[in-house]
Amino acid sequence: MVRYKVVIGYDGTNFAGFQRQNNHRTVQGELENTLKKINSGRSIEVYGAGRTDSGVHALGQVIHFDMDNERDEEKLRFALDTQTPDDISVFGVYKVDDNFHSRYSPHEKCYRYTIDLNKAYNPLFRTQALHYRYDLNLDLIEQAITQLEGTHDFTSFCAAGSQVVDKVRTIYKISLNYYEDTNILTLTFYGNGFLYKMIRNIVGVLLAVGNQRIPVTDVSKILQAKDRNLCPATADAHGLCLLQVNYK
Amino acid sequence: MVRYKVVIGYDGTNFAGFQRQNNHRTVQGELENTLKKINSGRSIEVYGAGRTDSGVHALGQVIHFDMDNERDEEKLRFALDTQTPDDISVFGVYKVDDNFHSRYSPHEKCYRYTIDLNKAYNPLFRTQALHYRYDLNLDLIEQAITQLEGTHDFTSFCAAGSQVVDKVRTIYKISLNYYEDTNILTLTFYGNGFLYKMIRNIVGVLLAVGNQRIPVTDVSKILQAKDRNLCPATADAHGLCLLQVNYK
Repeated sequence: MVRYKVVIGYDGTNFAGFQRQNNHRTVQGELENTLKKINSGRSIEVYGAGRTDSGVHALGQVIHFDMDNERDEEKLRFALDTQTPDDISVFGVYKVDDNFHSRYSPHEKCYRYTIDLNKAYNPLFRTQALHYRYDLNLDLIEQAITQLEGTHDFTSFCAAGSQVVDKVRTIYKISLNYYEDTNILTLTFYGNGFLYKMIRNIVGVLLAVGNQRIPVTDVSKILQAKDRNLCPATADAHGLCLLQVNYK
Repeated sequence: MVRYKVVIGYDGTNFAGFQRQNNHRTVQGELENTLKKINSGRSIEVYGAGRTDSGVHALGQVIHFDMDNERDEEKLRFALDTQTPDDISVFGVYKVDDNFHSRYSPHEKCYRYTIDLNKAYNPLFRTQALHYRYDLNLDLIEQAITQLEGTHDFTSFCAAGSQVVDKVRTIYKISLNYYEDTNILTLTFYGNGFLYKMIRNIVGVLLAVGNQRIPVTDVSKILQAKDRNLCPATADAHGLCLLQVNYK
């Protein structure tokens, strides 16, 4: 038995998320279909580092799976890349120790949320950027960010229905970048893990602060209240992209 | 009668090009459908600065049309933007003199060609970047560029079937930009006009030079021969985007 760690990317637009579901097209489902073909019809189960939602993209998702026999890493990468559908790319295949687990081995993750601030959106980014045509004060967003960085109980930012008990997470950094030539804003999140819909809920709060619908001082209050109902609307899935998973 | 100049963008993926055709979805066709709706059912003809091919994108195409009555520029922009399909955006509407013509008024154009050099392509750029996974020597491409900039007879780079007689054009500049973080190469062309498929033919030559399939000294020879048959394969349409049309 050989375990493979694989770095993949996908355009989340036409997937019902990462995780396999009956009667829905998913990233895991497509990967397992392809693996079965190149494994003489025997099924292989895929484990992903993060279960991205429907519409969420990835340029550095990590998966792992086991195969009975050893394969050349580049040949396996090429076979997977060319036989998976067009909206999945396979960037790298690496043999790893049997105890490596894409989800449970300690790791840090990096996500990027993209916001198109143009009055009329850029049609080439419309499936990968939230269109936000209202006023945004970036200084206020920066002030809100400083209240969210660090180790906190993020209960207020966790979607209802999550079964995770410990909701303390550490955000190492949230980088705000504004690209003047395209009028695009990105928020890049570095953390040791994120709760279900946590980033999209944080983006919802940052937009509410930037648009001055809530005062910046409310951010700490929302955090401390540990109450999901205080959080403004969740930002749309299609602005989010899983950029990197770094194992320790 | 009021003439309007309108700046638009589109994702060319699902269009059979700009120019109206029976039984095919085109940018001009969609614009004219929308204009008819907001003009009480009366048809309006649209004139575009450039007839982009099927698959070619635009972020700064310019069109013009006439309406019987005067409209508020921003209200007309908003109506067009929201009523055209998702893959067309309307960035600006401007009242202009009756003698303005999007195609025949003197102008300069800027196009960008995008090339994804990753071994496995970035799935988020797959409809807007040519995937080129072979070796490329960027210094050789820069040398080839210096032979193409300036005023030349570009017959060798003009697609068969063009009815244009004068094939002398001026390329003011071709900028090469390599983005290390994404492994993406862009070639931006500034000129006083481009012949049919001229940029895609030039990109084909630049890739052949960069990949050392032809020597850099062949570029001047191809130009001087004025023979379309000497040109290597035309680069795919989907890497090309019309960025700007600047009127004098």
